[in-house]
Amino acid sequence: MTDEDSILAANTAYYHAFSKADIVGMSAIWAEDDVSCIHPGWPVLIGGQNVLRSYGEIFRNPLQEPLEHQKHHVIATGDDGRVFCVEIVGGMALAATNWFKRINGAWRLIHHQASPIAAPIEENDIQPSPKQLN
Amino acid sequence: MTDEDSILAANTAYYHAFSKADIVGMSAIWAEDDVSCIHPGWPVLIGGQNVLRSYGEIFRNPLQEPLEHQKHHVIATGDDGRVFCVEIVGGMALAATNWFKRINGAWRLIHHQASPIAAPIEENDIQPSPKQLN
Repeated sequence: MTDEDSILAANTAYYHAFSKADIVGMSAIWAEDDVSCIHPGWPVLIGGQNVLRSYGEIFRNPLQEPLEHQKHHVIATGDDGRVFCVEIVGGMALAATNWFKRINGAWRLIHHQASPIAAPIEENDIQPSPKQLN
Repeated sequence: MTDEDSILAANTAYYHAFSKADIVGMSAIWAEDDVSCIHPGWPVLIGGQNVLRSYGEIFRNPLQEPLEHQKHHVIATGDDGRVFCVEIVGGMALAATNWFKRINGAWRLIHHQASPIAAPIEENDIQPSPKQLN
């Protein structure tokens, strides 16, 4: 299994915990220290307690729409792995960054940010330029 | 000078280049490899050429509003430095992430993402919880 595969598996686990409103699973996915999170429309949240509390609020929100994720792109560099994907929530497209760090052999989330996308997405938009393939 | 100071100086240089529409300065601030950027409303851009091209487009846009940055918070972990700040553009507040990596002794930008903030910002919102101070 390549690092890219392992990072994508961690990313899938994140969205699985989100879809199940599983705060225990979410707690296991996030790292314990040096974490940051910017939900759509929210200011930045720093620190594990603040971040997990925010997921608790989201999970308790009866109006929270289901979330789909697609169009994944991974940048793996040593013990860091960034996943970019498009989240679809309530018919809205969001550009999401999920930043994982390999800690004691496991990929743990250290940063999440999701931003509304104004324009339709073309697959070509997220491809690296030829000189940047690595 | 602490790492936090150096990272904040790199962050200031980024916004200085932005305010001057200085594409050469911007090119020196960004790392050459493994870079990613999500401008407000845009899908993710991967790779140095795509990212720098996007700044060229922004700098040539006659309707581009001036940008202020405030409320900085740094997470410095080894050779990584994340700066979170609030960008004010055209009366709109954005939660921005600027992720730097120390490469050959210099802090170079490897990721930028800015998201509109829906709610007013309180200073307390971005403080770490007591157990997360480090």
